[in-house]
Amino acid sequence: MTVHEVEPFNAEPPRSALATSELTPVDAFYSRNHGPVPDVDARTWRLRVDGLVSTPLSLSLDDLRDRFAERTETATLQCAGNRREGLAAVRDIPGEAPWGPTATATASWTGVALADVLAAAGVQDAATDVEFLGADVSDQADPPQEFGGSVPLRKAGMPEVLLAWAMNGEALPAVHGAPLRVVVPGYIGARSVKWVHRVRVTDAPSSNFFQASTYRLLPPDAEVTATPGEGVELGLVAVNSDFLAPDDGSEVPAGPTRVSGYAFAGGDRTVVRVDVSADGGATWTQADLAEQASTWAWRHWHASVEVPQGDVELLARAWDSSAALQPERPEQVWNPKGYVNNSWARLRLHGV
Amino acid sequence: MTVHEVEPFNAEPPRSALATSELTPVDAFYSRNHGPVPDVDARTWRLRVDGLVSTPLSLSLDDLRDRFAERTETATLQCAGNRREGLAAVRDIPGEAPWGPTATATASWTGVALADVLAAAGVQDAATDVEFLGADVSDQADPPQEFGGSVPLRKAGMPEVLLAWAMNGEALPAVHGAPLRVVVPGYIGARSVKWVHRVRVTDAPSSNFFQASTYRLLPPDAEVTATPGEGVELGLVAVNSDFLAPDDGSEVPAGPTRVSGYAFAGGDRTVVRVDVSADGGATWTQADLAEQASTWAWRHWHASVEVPQGDVELLARAWDSSAALQPERPEQVWNPKGYVNNSWARLRLHGV
Repeated sequence: MTVHEVEPFNAEPPRSALATSELTPVDAFYSRNHGPVPDVDARTWRLRVDGLVSTPLSLSLDDLRDRFAERTETATLQCAGNRREGLAAVRDIPGEAPWGPTATATASWTGVALADVLAAAGVQDAATDVEFLGADVSDQADPPQEFGGSVPLRKAGMPEVLLAWAMNGEALPAVHGAPLRVVVPGYIGARSVKWVHRVRVTDAPSSNFFQASTYRLLPPDAEVTATPGEGVELGLVAVNSDFLAPDDGSEVPAGPTRVSGYAFAGGDRTVVRVDVSADGGATWTQADLAEQASTWAWRHWHASVEVPQGDVELLARAWDSSAALQPERPEQVWNPKGYVNNSWARLRLHGV
Repeated sequence: MTVHEVEPFNAEPPRSALATSELTPVDAFYSRNHGPVPDVDARTWRLRVDGLVSTPLSLSLDDLRDRFAERTETATLQCAGNRREGLAAVRDIPGEAPWGPTATATASWTGVALADVLAAAGVQDAATDVEFLGADVSDQADPPQEFGGSVPLRKAGMPEVLLAWAMNGEALPAVHGAPLRVVVPGYIGARSVKWVHRVRVTDAPSSNFFQASTYRLLPPDAEVTATPGEGVELGLVAVNSDFLAPDDGSEVPAGPTRVSGYAFAGGDRTVVRVDVSADGGATWTQADLAEQASTWAWRHWHASVEVPQGDVELLARAWDSSAALQPERPEQVWNPKGYVNNSWARLRLHGV
């Protein structure tokens, strides 16, 4: 793993670790944290469900297992800072880790549907949003604050949104949120709150630092401040893609070369097409798309491209089911916090 | 109106007709048809609801009004061919009308929620899609076929999808689908089937000509054939925008000039930002966004830009709530049928 920071722990794997299977091994799954991994005692841990509900709940893990149907969903998570290094190459982004293209990964998640828990609590008519609070305290907020965030009630009520205790069939590791985490497929990773201990039904989006003051798209000329409400709240994931093999900067035999990668689109969209070019975008080859493990998962793709002698930069670009195409250049999407670099993927190869 | 075709009737209004109000007057609402407007007798007309349901229904207009709660939603419809002229300028698109930027419009729609009707019929577990069939027969299909199409059951079950008999508070005009049309907010206009007489619950997307064989995104080098399943099915609407005032090619006094337009994003997305440039994209001004009439409506925007003496081309580009940005150039999104031109909007002005 490339460790961007030790405490809080922030790390991503090499491209090759994501290339081999649709499901990412747990030890190759990126870690994005804003505070130390909290030490949660699963025996005394309770999930509080409150706010605009008719019956507030306090649930142990056994309560969750006993009272609600178990569900497993395969879903991709993607950090809003994924591929930030491509933006930082355009203009400096101080104070933010230069994530490469692997701050995204896919797992099968097992737990219960948040919708079932909300139904047991009884959501009031005035509710519009559902907020999650984790046990990790971050001193990036002033004063230090538990990590949290919310999603619209319409999304929270969908069957794919889970309170999960297992990942790829094994107990959730501490670093990925044990004993329980939220999984919100199709939304930026920040909404899949780890170490969740409270679900609060509200009538407004979360005012937590990590939603109201950061994880926001600021205009290019904005100063980075912690003023709540500046710029645009991130949430749904835009169509994105990158190469996974060969590695960037590889030497390969000139001639037909197999390249592969991932593409992902959040919300109600899926990836429907990926194009690859070895001539700067003058001509494109349509990649073969692997079967999608679920509606909420990325699609692996591969293509054969003609690599010439010498240096070449390959391009890849994905289209989603709304016919949205990634924008071409990182300059077009540059923003002061370096979020959502979904410009066309670029891979340098050297043909010999 | 600019009439692209008299029979079937295809017409769009001047930009200015969309600029003045968030709700488009009925007589300025674009018409996109594939066959003659059918002559439907509302007194004998029935809506059949069948397929994978436990109780097939046959409903008169009075049945719909009596048995289900009336709902009104404000929603934008957008033709998949909107702004095709920008693609046709790149490379010829034979056999398709060169729609300008006004094959999109917004109305308030009144009727009943499709979800309520489906609940009354009882949807079977195997169902995945809901197909709509209209009374208009098109000879663009061989043999001639009723216009139709489907949406996923997940969407069909959402409260915003209507079976509508009124538009902006008045009875639906014949050309807009009287006595009843479907309104699927966030999807291409083709799914909002007019003159609907049958709702069929199915376990696959529609095989109707207008979904399986056309309204598909083909790769740039594809030949246009009517082979079902080629390319990618369109459905959800990608983020898009254009100018509404001044008109393209206008002479205006040099200096600060107010420009306005619309921006729209389908599916679960809304428009969150619009940028305007008078210097080819070197610098951008953030436009002011009007309040959105509903989650399903476009956003009008306006900005003041400095128009120099002589010719200038203004640019506009919108961002949606997934942080997706329109792609820059029509060349990047060109496709043989000329669908979904969501490249940056361009407006030529002459400063005097």
